[in-house]
Amino acid sequence: MDMLACHLNRAIDIPLYEQLYDFIKKEITEGHLAYGSKLPSKRKLSEFLKVSQNTVENAYGQLIAEGYIEGVPRKGYFVLAYEDLEYVQTETPSAHEKTVEHKDTAYYFHPSRIDTESFPFAQWRKYARDTIDQAHHSLLLLGDKQGELELRKQIANYLYHARGVKCSADQIIIGAGSDILLQQLILLFDKQTVYGVENPGYHVILHILESYQNTVQPLEVDADGVKIQSIEKANIDAVYVTPSHHFPYGSVLSVNRRIKLLNWAAEKENRYIIEDDYDSEFRYSGKSIPSLQSMDHREKVVYLGSFSKSLIPSLRISYMVLPMHLLKKYKDKELSYYHCSVSRIDQHILSQFMKEGEFEKHLNRMRKIYRRKLEKTLDVLKPYKQTVEVIGEHSGLHIVLNVKNGMQEQELVQNAWKAGIKIHPLSAYLLEKRADPLPKMILGFAGIAEKELEKALTLLLESWGIR
Amino acid sequence: MDMLACHLNRAIDIPLYEQLYDFIKKEITEGHLAYGSKLPSKRKLSEFLKVSQNTVENAYGQLIAEGYIEGVPRKGYFVLAYEDLEYVQTETPSAHEKTVEHKDTAYYFHPSRIDTESFPFAQWRKYARDTIDQAHHSLLLLGDKQGELELRKQIANYLYHARGVKCSADQIIIGAGSDILLQQLILLFDKQTVYGVENPGYHVILHILESYQNTVQPLEVDADGVKIQSIEKANIDAVYVTPSHHFPYGSVLSVNRRIKLLNWAAEKENRYIIEDDYDSEFRYSGKSIPSLQSMDHREKVVYLGSFSKSLIPSLRISYMVLPMHLLKKYKDKELSYYHCSVSRIDQHILSQFMKEGEFEKHLNRMRKIYRRKLEKTLDVLKPYKQTVEVIGEHSGLHIVLNVKNGMQEQELVQNAWKAGIKIHPLSAYLLEKRADPLPKMILGFAGIAEKELEKALTLLLESWGIR
Repeated sequence: MDMLACHLNRAIDIPLYEQLYDFIKKEITEGHLAYGSKLPSKRKLSEFLKVSQNTVENAYGQLIAEGYIEGVPRKGYFVLAYEDLEYVQTETPSAHEKTVEHKDTAYYFHPSRIDTESFPFAQWRKYARDTIDQAHHSLLLLGDKQGELELRKQIANYLYHARGVKCSADQIIIGAGSDILLQQLILLFDKQTVYGVENPGYHVILHILESYQNTVQPLEVDADGVKIQSIEKANIDAVYVTPSHHFPYGSVLSVNRRIKLLNWAAEKENRYIIEDDYDSEFRYSGKSIPSLQSMDHREKVVYLGSFSKSLIPSLRISYMVLPMHLLKKYKDKELSYYHCSVSRIDQHILSQFMKEGEFEKHLNRMRKIYRRKLEKTLDVLKPYKQTVEVIGEHSGLHIVLNVKNGMQEQELVQNAWKAGIKIHPLSAYLLEKRADPLPKMILGFAGIAEKELEKALTLLLESWGIR
Repeated sequence: MDMLACHLNRAIDIPLYEQLYDFIKKEITEGHLAYGSKLPSKRKLSEFLKVSQNTVENAYGQLIAEGYIEGVPRKGYFVLAYEDLEYVQTETPSAHEKTVEHKDTAYYFHPSRIDTESFPFAQWRKYARDTIDQAHHSLLLLGDKQGELELRKQIANYLYHARGVKCSADQIIIGAGSDILLQQLILLFDKQTVYGVENPGYHVILHILESYQNTVQPLEVDADGVKIQSIEKANIDAVYVTPSHHFPYGSVLSVNRRIKLLNWAAEKENRYIIEDDYDSEFRYSGKSIPSLQSMDHREKVVYLGSFSKSLIPSLRISYMVLPMHLLKKYKDKELSYYHCSVSRIDQHILSQFMKEGEFEKHLNRMRKIYRRKLEKTLDVLKPYKQTVEVIGEHSGLHIVLNVKNGMQEQELVQNAWKAGIKIHPLSAYLLEKRADPLPKMILGFAGIAEKELEKALTLLLESWGIR
């Protein structure tokens, strides 16, 4: 801790100790003096400020009394934890949640949540330890702007075997989230490009496209995925779709529509399909559904993938696979002036994790765990199937509940919230933001501990008066 | 390794073993079978493909002969490293470098390079080990969209003490590079905003602004930093400046101009200053120069900082400090729909590193190392000061050489390159991309080992015929 440069004013009527106390308190509450910081000794501060030791002692005494600092014998004075007023909630509750009285959140059925208890910390730590080493000191410098070649090779290999995606490592661009990759992708398309996005869908896409002043058309979705008619009738150049597992409905784009979609794209030169294959790793019944990219022979599909569901949401590692002619454009346009947004150390850890077969092992293990969680969920819900219809139960980390107990959407959210449960309505992902007259709720089951699942679901059903 | 789904065609005139060989070779060269992958055993593959073991043996034999795979006794067959044709250079050499015959690069004077040998790997590894642990399993989930509160508190504290920046943790937004933060910042300003950027300057800014279809005006720079007149005479709303250490000139914005700049911004409501304080940590002579943000009382300055120079370039952790009214706009506009682009694990490691005082220790150590490297550099150059004038030697990790040996810029680059040295001209950072008639070269001294510095510089001077 350096000195405290407090300007004491001897001309005013406020005692010096109080001015000093006010100053330090403000430094703490405003976050300039952090939790654990050591304050100067009384002697040193009194010499520095040219006041008596008594003055400093009184100021410190008052701060101790009020719980801002503590004195540790023979060590000195330290700033205590301060409950920051500016504390921002990790997940901002929506407006109505703020006003409803509720218990502490016990369960959160958010679709982005994974099972954090089953993560192979020991293995990940091992690769981290090996990577963070003098031997790899050159990893500290900026690397390839598309991402580490070794990781891109691992991803290309994985995509080929798991998703039928045919690409070389060179076609892959790694970035800190699909959002960031999409921002680069947009720059490869004409500025006048009109985009079609699924409705409901991943609403971040809409925000990003609109921030680039692109026109966006909503596309209708049913049990067979996005409706091709809604693409054909609007004047659309590029579509953003989730064919393997529609977000949030969970429907799979039928083969018939896949071919129609690819044909639609083939009709004009500037038409493209952005395929977000966001949680294709987890499919519990039937055959794995090949990616659209694997069916594309005309360089029409840009493939987007991520390690958010399959590994760690907060790691922020995503990738996109560009068709060859777009890759050329990417390089020509010098879009590679952006540095790769993912830490090279993290990329290195992940590529080792994949290379040693740990990723595949992890996926196999998680598929079993999630399948058990899904089965447990369906078991608990089964007796109430007249009132709670389940949609999209074949893959992914969430299902959709079609709730027919007569309650409106907001009532469902609020009643759950009062019981300590957070759950979001499907309408939150509608582009036009309106409540659905036939309320549907998104139930992310992956983040709830297996042994808690029955209790959590029972509580939820009770809060809705169903059980 | 799964099976190899090779479709052998018995109807054609190519032997089966050759078809199999072609198939596997293609899988390797196209990157689908990665270095180190294990191939199926001969027996298993022959059963799977319904061919004789001899066929597989012949195919494998040919691949071994050509160096694509190797057989390890009692272990199996493994794919060997394949010199990927699509290999992308970490730093793409510019056009003329490609055609010039040269030695292997021995020294690279890039201004983004740091001293990687002195990084405290042991400490960083310790905090990584502590963080990657079951006890922190909730760190795997998505966190606060502005970044980890604890890290933001540490940054606020550091900025206050080191740079005089007054802000609360709530005003800080963490992102994977200034580029990404700038993309969010742009969305807070009017779409019609005209930007002024220093010329020469950090050219990525220009690309980003233009990708959002903003008008960008170049601003003149001299020994006192950016010329205020050039701001006043253009119709500019927001300026992007590097007042503490102009990039790449190294000049410091004079106090007089600082005040003029702040006054200019205060004149109109929608005027802003984006202050990039990119390597302010390293100042070797005179007093530390306070940030513009510390002088601003009207919420006109957005402060940008990064850990690229002070810690690890490839870690990709930067931050911006928003004035209160822009923070409100950020929250209202729901710009926080972007997830924080930095891994939470990395944020946690860094905040522990800062909290425990390791960051300050590291900075102090590096300041001494860089000072020694700079002094050594100046010593070596001193005898030739008539021909090689040094600019910007008071701070940062690079200096500018005004080379007056009669050679043109391209000649200087090429001659150095022939001697195994990479160095970039200052003109590379001119917005309009033209060679400077009075050639200036950017000499990043931080990345060269101290004991190599004299040799590297001597080699450089010799390649220019100066020594």
